[in-house]
Amino acid sequence: MATKNRKLRMGMVGGGRGAFIGGVHRMAAALDGQIELVAGAFSSDPEKSRLSGEDLFLSPERVYASYLEMAKAEAKRPDRIDFVTIVARNDMHYPVAKAFLEAGIHVVCEKPLAYSLAEAKQLRALAKKSGLIFALTHNYTGYPMVKEARAMVRAGKLGKINKVVVEYPQGYAITALKSKQDTKISNWRMDPTLSGLSNCVGDIGTHAENLAQYITGLELAEVAADLSTYIPGRPLDDDANMLLRYKGGAKGILHSSQISTGDENNLNIRVYGTLASLEWHQEHPNELTVKFAEAPRQVWRRGNSYNGPEAKKYTRTPFGHPEAFIEAFANIYRSVTEAVRDRLAGRKAPKAGYDFPTIDDGVTGMAFVAAAVKSSKANARWTKLDA
Amino acid sequence: MATKNRKLRMGMVGGGRGAFIGGVHRMAAALDGQIELVAGAFSSDPEKSRLSGEDLFLSPERVYASYLEMAKAEAKRPDRIDFVTIVARNDMHYPVAKAFLEAGIHVVCEKPLAYSLAEAKQLRALAKKSGLIFALTHNYTGYPMVKEARAMVRAGKLGKINKVVVEYPQGYAITALKSKQDTKISNWRMDPTLSGLSNCVGDIGTHAENLAQYITGLELAEVAADLSTYIPGRPLDDDANMLLRYKGGAKGILHSSQISTGDENNLNIRVYGTLASLEWHQEHPNELTVKFAEAPRQVWRRGNSYNGPEAKKYTRTPFGHPEAFIEAFANIYRSVTEAVRDRLAGRKAPKAGYDFPTIDDGVTGMAFVAAAVKSSKANARWTKLDA
Amino acid sequence: MATKNRKLRMGMVGGGRGAFIGGVHRMAAALDGQIELVAGAFSSDPEKSRLSGEDLFLSPERVYASYLEMAKAEAKRPDRIDFVTIVARNDMHYPVAKAFLEAGIHVVCEKPLAYSLAEAKQLRALAKKSGLIFALTHNYTGYPMVKEARAMVRAGKLGKINKVVVEYPQGYAITALKSKQDTKISNWRMDPTLSGLSNCVGDIGTHAENLAQYITGLELAEVAADLSTYIPGRPLDDDANMLLRYKGGAKGILHSSQISTGDENNLNIRVYGTLASLEWHQEHPNELTVKFAEAPRQVWRRGNSYNGPEAKKYTRTPFGHPEAFIEAFANIYRSVTEAVRDRLAGRKAPKAGYDFPTIDDGVTGMAFVAAAVKSSKANARWTKLDA
Amino acid sequence: MATKNRKLRMGMVGGGRGAFIGGVHRMAAALDGQIELVAGAFSSDPEKSRLSGEDLFLSPERVYASYLEMAKAEAKRPDRIDFVTIVARNDMHYPVAKAFLEAGIHVVCEKPLAYSLAEAKQLRALAKKSGLIFALTHNYTGYPMVKEARAMVRAGKLGKINKVVVEYPQGYAITALKSKQDTKISNWRMDPTLSGLSNCVGDIGTHAENLAQYITGLELAEVAADLSTYIPGRPLDDDANMLLRYKGGAKGILHSSQISTGDENNLNIRVYGTLASLEWHQEHPNELTVKFAEAPRQVWRRGNSYNGPEAKKYTRTPFGHPEAFIEAFANIYRSVTEAVRDRLAGRKAPKAGYDFPTIDDGVTGMAFVAAAVKSSKANARWTKLDA
Repeated sequence: MATKNRKLRMGMVGGGRGAFIGGVHRMAAALDGQIELVAGAFSSDPEKSRLSGEDLFLSPERVYASYLEMAKAEAKRPDRIDFVTIVARNDMHYPVAKAFLEAGIHVVCEKPLAYSLAEAKQLRALAKKSGLIFALTHNYTGYPMVKEARAMVRAGKLGKINKVVVEYPQGYAITALKSKQDTKISNWRMDPTLSGLSNCVGDIGTHAENLAQYITGLELAEVAADLSTYIPGRPLDDDANMLLRYKGGAKGILHSSQISTGDENNLNIRVYGTLASLEWHQEHPNELTVKFAEAPRQVWRRGNSYNGPEAKKYTRTPFGHPEAFIEAFANIYRSVTEAVRDRLAGRKAPKAGYDFPTIDDGVTGMAFVAAAVKSSKANARWTKLDA
Repeated sequence: MATKNRKLRMGMVGGGRGAFIGGVHRMAAALDGQIELVAGAFSSDPEKSRLSGEDLFLSPERVYASYLEMAKAEAKRPDRIDFVTIVARNDMHYPVAKAFLEAGIHVVCEKPLAYSLAEAKQLRALAKKSGLIFALTHNYTGYPMVKEARAMVRAGKLGKINKVVVEYPQGYAITALKSKQDTKISNWRMDPTLSGLSNCVGDIGTHAENLAQYITGLELAEVAADLSTYIPGRPLDDDANMLLRYKGGAKGILHSSQISTGDENNLNIRVYGTLASLEWHQEHPNELTVKFAEAPRQVWRRGNSYNGPEAKKYTRTPFGHPEAFIEAFANIYRSVTEAVRDRLAGRKAPKAGYDFPTIDDGVTGMAFVAAAVKSSKANARWTKLDA
Repeated sequence: MATKNRKLRMGMVGGGRGAFIGGVHRMAAALDGQIELVAGAFSSDPEKSRLSGEDLFLSPERVYASYLEMAKAEAKRPDRIDFVTIVARNDMHYPVAKAFLEAGIHVVCEKPLAYSLAEAKQLRALAKKSGLIFALTHNYTGYPMVKEARAMVRAGKLGKINKVVVEYPQGYAITALKSKQDTKISNWRMDPTLSGLSNCVGDIGTHAENLAQYITGLELAEVAADLSTYIPGRPLDDDANMLLRYKGGAKGILHSSQISTGDENNLNIRVYGTLASLEWHQEHPNELTVKFAEAPRQVWRRGNSYNGPEAKKYTRTPFGHPEAFIEAFANIYRSVTEAVRDRLAGRKAPKAGYDFPTIDDGVTGMAFVAAAVKSSKANARWTKLDA
Repeated sequence: MATKNRKLRMGMVGGGRGAFIGGVHRMAAALDGQIELVAGAFSSDPEKSRLSGEDLFLSPERVYASYLEMAKAEAKRPDRIDFVTIVARNDMHYPVAKAFLEAGIHVVCEKPLAYSLAEAKQLRALAKKSGLIFALTHNYTGYPMVKEARAMVRAGKLGKINKVVVEYPQGYAITALKSKQDTKISNWRMDPTLSGLSNCVGDIGTHAENLAQYITGLELAEVAADLSTYIPGRPLDDDANMLLRYKGGAKGILHSSQISTGDENNLNIRVYGTLASLEWHQEHPNELTVKFAEAPRQVWRRGNSYNGPEAKKYTRTPFGHPEAFIEAFANIYRSVTEAVRDRLAGRKAPKAGYDFPTIDDGVTGMAFVAAAVKSSKANARWTKLDA
């Protein structure tokens, strides 16, 4: 099972015809030429799964009618998949991940980690016990300039962090409403029985929370949240405003929204320290603005000789040849590839660990969602995270 | 006392040598060639007042040792001042304004309106009773593109307003700390006996609150505020994070800060409606971004034929010849000039009123500060404004 | 005639009702409270001049029916004007300036300096002989960050300058065409008998040329120019593309245009040296981008402690309180004020000279226009400047 | 040889270990999951070719020691490659392309098309005669918003095009000089025997020329060019300034540079028409600014419902999830895939043709380089393109 002379073999659960995020995972996994998709259970509808496999030029015998069948069959193959990517609906993350962990197969899982915090914690226990790799695709941490930001904070360049402002405004719910595609776009995300406690906080607020934690290294202690549902008839939130308190005294603001008309996918963050602040915008990801007190502003750009090793390791093109969403996503896979190859070769993990989000990030995310919902129900009372 | 063939006569209280905001008022008042400064009590130190008057080429007899003396003497002159501008310390706003109102002289007053909410309300009663003009220099509403934004909202172009995000991050307290000028720069603002209940909310948070209200026309109902003092040894807040709830259901976020390292005077606002959103940044004031769902973004720019009459009235230069802070400030004076000339000529006020902030805005601002401080002391509990 | 205790007295020729640039000069001159407008011949139409004087609250006796009358009468007054500002049509610059120089009165003159290069040189001779102050309002050099840029180049921070790209695209001719205001807006500028050899190069190209020279200190040797008239029926150019060669080996590109649809007043410049480059945009004037090889980009902003003395001297408001077009214009007057006060007080000029554009800049500008027109007629043949 | 159930098979010539552009082609080709790399002659050094093939997990029998061997061997295989990508040095484009065309294999070739204009024309004749697909990777035309721009111009939204400003400033030569990597980075590009007549115009000027032509549809008639070599000791140009004249009366400016210190890969274009202008920057590729006279500016963004079909066809992620350089490059392969699959399936080409740059674009590019060099040698005399 040496991997030196072969690509890693990837399987996929979910991501059938018409699914957006499954396609992104496939592009991201393919980008570096290190991974090939060889198996999948792309839909709970066996025929749809079959057609999706055909689209992807897979061998028919490895296109499965269900994830259970797939886990079982793949576990037995000599050329079995090295890892599975789970891009199914939120409520399926837990059972699918469980099945593959039990089959001894490494897991890459979409966020949120699970349908509920309780499930998430169970899954964490299972994953830890298995000793297998479990990566969560909080993909925005894959951007090189986010890694640069994190390295700056770690190196103390910003001084002590006082304040974080992290935003994730989208307007797509308004757009969908206008074009009457509401049902189509957000169907299951707005269904509490499939999506979980929250729509907006769960879907995008968690990305914001994770990004802030990744860059600052701060642990979120409590939130005071005011969730809203602006679009009539929706059972779950489509907007969330929050005050944050981190352990150690830093404070912050987080807001995520799907009714911010005209905004697209405007995740952005500002981190203020006693010596300097930094600012990053997902829609212009190749730049990181750094502001020292009483000095000209600095714009750090990807691909330059002055970038740190953390950013350089996850860079594919020279300066001025922009990288974007898919490349950042591919960086999660680059790091997972490193981990899987280490395992297959019997190498130890590097001392500093790998640079992909883990199941612990996933549990934190679920605890964040639970705390936000609880706080909002208590009229924005400060509520601690129970991770 | 006809004014047709003469400039309006302005007096000033405060704004002596070295004072920043007094100089801004003088430039703003001079810009349109409609106002001349003829009298002043520039400092509580008579010698400093005298020297300041000399700098300004004033007639020595109209440079006063105290505002009381000035109010009394000017009231008697046939060529007395048409209005007085008050740029003294927060705790002096009330007594000075009272003195000039009682002398029958119109008032232009710096914000915050007074030292406390109680004082502010008293002053409001005095001003209303006097029937005199009372303008408050919430100068950021003077920008033409802010007026354009307001006109858009009023015309219903944004639909129903759902959400407001208004920010006022400054980093000067950190800068001052670094350069050891802390005492000098922020001296009285950090002294509760002179400044009032709050430093950061009172000084800049109120501008943010006023800007949001001016543009949206929404009335702020309650706030949940988390105030902080990051710089050790300070008795008052230097940072504030708040959740907002407006009457009618809109919500919002407001944060103001003096410890946002590297930020300068970054007041900005986003207003999200059901049809469109708008975005404006004080540091790039000639542009207003408007985002309709499913349409290209629009950047409205000052000085164009497509601008509405509200913006055009307060525009001095053609498109591409940028206007900025002083011009916006001068627009408050342009509107005050219109009001004073109407009074002097015995004309009624226009039906739609004048376009300068009033003492009512001042009381709202003080109520906002009081509510924010009270909420923060109660661990960010929702607290209603008492205006 | 001491000036310590009084404002300087300014006269104006041209700038009557409806004239844009006259109003700008008056606002710019008024801004610092150092200058008062006391006399004028605002139009060649005496009645229009009279009404304009009334608008400006001038004493009727000092509102003249002609510039000749004004020069003569003012020269005799004990309280005569300290300087005259000429904002009349291009073809009038020479005779008006001559009249005031001969009356012993300092001159501030709009650009271009004169109707023709020959006239410009004659005027230079007259001015030099008179020993009087002669300032030319190439106002864009008044911006603080332009002064910062110049200081950087002078200090060698950019290394040897290799390349300059300076642009001045406007779209107003297209806009005017669309709104059928073409005649009104550009009337005399398109009339060769009033405007001179060129419309677009003379009106705005010269600003670009002057800006490049001011920042780099380089002397323009020759141009290869391709002038165009895109709007049918126009006798003069409305667009110009040029290659530049400077003495010492630097090269460049300059283009100015009035048919760049949708552009407003987008003067901008990039200067490339062997160590760093800089970039400045008139429409966002408070920022100067500096790019060193292999280092994060720097954005220098106005009003900061790190600004050099050249910029600081011409700054009125703190960082983040933007200054713009009128303030930059006022900086020309600030520098002229310094010069006139020095003269009146019998002080020598400072060793480094004053920081306003001079008649020499004016002659260079006229030589540039003449060379561009000549080159274009010779199918863009390289043509030397004859200054 | 049906392709319905399989990926297309790609071969590569050049692009061995350490080569930048070869890796980009591989990522671009892999992105959509439609192409697999199966064969290559990656270097003229057989051992380096072998090791490169190993890195890429290729079957050793299909990793060749020379392109001639490869063309011959692949032509005979039943599972032969469907097309070859040529990423070898400029001087090798002609012989390699010739070999594969003669073997009946479709070609994707890096630009510039050939070492000289004469060679380029010969290759065009060969390609036309062969009837095979020949795509040239002017990759910047692959950006969706470039396609949107083109569609706008074609639809007449800009009116008649008057002026084009296209820029391609890079600073890497200065950076390389500073870091003493000059030899390494630009070695063969600066060698006239390998690179051709020009370095800077050939390498990047041609991209600018092609981009302008792609968007505007205008045919370039003549150029007046001033080429420079700023870095001492270089035999070829590192900077070029040009005036342009298009057939039909439009004019323009093109400059490309490798000594624009601090600029990265700042290809950008502005196109001015009688009704509107547009502006696009490669470093922020998801936005296209459109400026109509007397209307708010529009910012068109990728991934929106209002995008035209040309842009939508080449879009992978929703709005706000930015795409960048690799995705644009992959769009060339997406279009080539369509063409190859049509051929393999015996389908006719669509009436409107495919959307990838062709050998005709390559010959135009070579004619442009030749004209620019010739013009510069004649002191920037206007010189016609001989395509």
